[in-house]
Amino acid sequence: MARVLTPRAEDFPRWYQDLIAKAQLADNGPVRGTMVIRPTGYALWERMQGEMDARIKAAGAENAYFPLFIPESYLRREAQHVEGFSPELAVVTHAGGKELAEPIVVRPTSETIFGEFMAKWVDSYRDLPLLLNQWANVVRWELRPRTFLRTTEFLWQEGHTAHATEADAAAYARRILHHVYEDFMVNLLAIPVVPGRKTVGERFAGATNTMTLEAMMGDGKALQMGTSHELGQNFAKAFDITYSSQAGSLEHCWTTSWGSTTRMIGGLIMVHGDDSGLRIPPRLAPVQANIMVVKAGEGVAEAAAKLRDELAAAGVRVTLDDRADVPFGRRAVDAELKGIPVRIEVGPRDLAAGNAVLVRRITGAKAPVPLGEVVAAVTAALKADQQQLFDDALALREERTVDVKTLGDALEAAQTGWARVPWSAVGVEGEAEANGKAVTVRCLIRPDGTVPDADDEPDLVAILARAY
Amino acid sequence: MARVLTPRAEDFPRWYQDLIAKAQLADNGPVRGTMVIRPTGYALWERMQGEMDARIKAAGAENAYFPLFIPESYLRREAQHVEGFSPELAVVTHAGGKELAEPIVVRPTSETIFGEFMAKWVDSYRDLPLLLNQWANVVRWELRPRTFLRTTEFLWQEGHTAHATEADAAAYARRILHHVYEDFMVNLLAIPVVPGRKTVGERFAGATNTMTLEAMMGDGKALQMGTSHELGQNFAKAFDITYSSQAGSLEHCWTTSWGSTTRMIGGLIMVHGDDSGLRIPPRLAPVQANIMVVKAGEGVAEAAAKLRDELAAAGVRVTLDDRADVPFGRRAVDAELKGIPVRIEVGPRDLAAGNAVLVRRITGAKAPVPLGEVVAAVTAALKADQQQLFDDALALREERTVDVKTLGDALEAAQTGWARVPWSAVGVEGEAEANGKAVTVRCLIRPDGTVPDADDEPDLVAILARAY
Repeated sequence: MARVLTPRAEDFPRWYQDLIAKAQLADNGPVRGTMVIRPTGYALWERMQGEMDARIKAAGAENAYFPLFIPESYLRREAQHVEGFSPELAVVTHAGGKELAEPIVVRPTSETIFGEFMAKWVDSYRDLPLLLNQWANVVRWELRPRTFLRTTEFLWQEGHTAHATEADAAAYARRILHHVYEDFMVNLLAIPVVPGRKTVGERFAGATNTMTLEAMMGDGKALQMGTSHELGQNFAKAFDITYSSQAGSLEHCWTTSWGSTTRMIGGLIMVHGDDSGLRIPPRLAPVQANIMVVKAGEGVAEAAAKLRDELAAAGVRVTLDDRADVPFGRRAVDAELKGIPVRIEVGPRDLAAGNAVLVRRITGAKAPVPLGEVVAAVTAALKADQQQLFDDALALREERTVDVKTLGDALEAAQTGWARVPWSAVGVEGEAEANGKAVTVRCLIRPDGTVPDADDEPDLVAILARAY
Repeated sequence: MARVLTPRAEDFPRWYQDLIAKAQLADNGPVRGTMVIRPTGYALWERMQGEMDARIKAAGAENAYFPLFIPESYLRREAQHVEGFSPELAVVTHAGGKELAEPIVVRPTSETIFGEFMAKWVDSYRDLPLLLNQWANVVRWELRPRTFLRTTEFLWQEGHTAHATEADAAAYARRILHHVYEDFMVNLLAIPVVPGRKTVGERFAGATNTMTLEAMMGDGKALQMGTSHELGQNFAKAFDITYSSQAGSLEHCWTTSWGSTTRMIGGLIMVHGDDSGLRIPPRLAPVQANIMVVKAGEGVAEAAAKLRDELAAAGVRVTLDDRADVPFGRRAVDAELKGIPVRIEVGPRDLAAGNAVLVRRITGAKAPVPLGEVVAAVTAALKADQQQLFDDALALREERTVDVKTLGDALEAAQTGWARVPWSAVGVEGEAEANGKAVTVRCLIRPDGTVPDADDEPDLVAILARAY
């Protein structure tokens, strides 16, 4: 069989770029670090958006849209924020044929401009919590861009909320972490994630607590799949977001922000892809089943159309590929590259026996199925293979995660996977040493796997890994 | 009754801005000409996106996403295009802390960057037509910004397609004009539109034919609601978009582009709004029916919840406002400002008689309805009032449109509405004279109302008006 991609085991980064190009997910844009998301890739993002948006709305947040352009002065109002983002900013200095009096920043994130308007909109405790979200593009100048993972421009949702109390803000940031992000990643993307707390050194610029969801990629490295931040009163003080309390006093709000991006597409590829291309979890897949006419023949077109209608009626997202003039092998390789979960081959020979052939992308299983049982077989395969992808990803993570006692052992284990090590054996100094060796503390978790509420809880466990 | 807004008849532009502020649709952003679309306004845009997107996909186009940043040199490749857009560009000169070697333009539209990639992706006639669309933000520096109508940044969809023949491109541009845009505007927005051909002077920069959909606002002015362009081979030649034909020769493609924007929200307000606020066409409305608890009382909460469940089960988008602690009048004024089509009042007195009270925002009708008949009454009202809004808008347009024979009469008629005048009585010279008096040729149509295929067809009718 012809080699379609550079094998994963031979050169993982090259396999990744090969897959993106050959599955037609994205191209590099002309401006350094930008990308063109092609229809095959964008369809994945549309499905992600729809599912994530439904969960965000279920968490009570409303969508809005804030401007792309932010006055440079806004960023300076929160000291850590401007320090964190300054090196990554794209700045508009000329517009409408003239030089601008004040340079404009292309948003790298929108805490500052949301803060400015929250201050206008929030008056009394009755206006709280204020729960907002937006779907938007943001720009962070990248020195080492990599498609989907680190791009100069990326697409994301960013939530911004204001609350009356620290406890309410903390609870909401956790609700997003678990009930929006973790639920989405586990149940839609079939990616096991570890929710945890970032160390002080890894916090978002301006946050008092950054929580993350970390996933293990196929090469044992980690990817941060999404983050949810408590911002304390930092932005509320910088932007004067105040409310009059029920007792009549004027108080500063407590705010949160949280984001998930097109980077998740990169994670999807690196967790589920194989040497034949992408494998899309069925619940996410824009196309779940592709009926392929193997070659023309008596009754073939009719049988294929009937199967398509039956599958669509059963709620399966289905397409029909009847391009009998394009070689079957080429079409099959393309569908495998793009990761369509199930292929149903319809041809004269199998049809004569009353069968179609069901090929499962995820398990590789291939078997004839009586025409009358195709819908049931496809539905069952989609359900089972969704679980299979998750199980495989979890098994890999467990296989490649090692419990160790010392920083030295953790650094060694991080060369091939993740190390779980007592945080007391690492500390701020050990973290700096690890960073010098391209290993980072991905997050801190409690011994029982839950997310810590403070940096100094006893017995915290640190997860160390190389990361994208 | 207290005056909620500046009356429309007193000061139309001020009424418009008042309505946007008080219905909480949008705020002005900090950078000149930008806007913050608030949740109430954004919910309208989400509904528009969903409905428009379904029609675009039905027309065979696929969504993609192209970069925000375009090298300045790309725009220069098409002479008319750069001339048209240069005065409106926002330019990034610094990024990542350094001055850039080549300035980057923030996209004002994306013909050039789509062109660059179409050239890479199109190889043979088998790759055509290539039908792409994207939902994105664009930036055009505005000297006289007005919320939703002319903003420095706006949201839109932009379609870009490549075809093998001029006839195929022309047919597709017309398909979008009628089956996507006109269908959406008439059937969802309840806005009668006139599809027509722009004069040479009003064409999109780089197009060989610009078609438009023009609507009459409540003050008699015109608003361009969307455009569909034939670009000839202009961009195909500038970006080398070629294909090998079935006969084996190398040919340039024929391309189209087409767009519709957040400006449609402004049109919606100016067509359907009244002195109490917005009136949203029921088929568009994010919330179609709002159940309002008038005041607390025995069985009120239960009856309201039951009605909500029944309406939701019948497919009505319904909310329940049970804030009995907020004065009823204030809540009713707010719901009217926001234009929710139907209000169902539930209170102890009506409930005792087995009734709720149905209040229709569009007609103003108010009547008690037996609880068991609420669903049927609401469904009927939503259907009838959708039609009513369209009929009213059409009646206004017909009342304010005058058929005249000379340019002088047309200019006079354009002070209060639209003038239909033979194009032969205007011509390029008359168009310039009209422009000097702030009147424009909105479009050219045939005597039978259809869209002309050429600028020089006989007996063309010009529509002259003042415009937003």
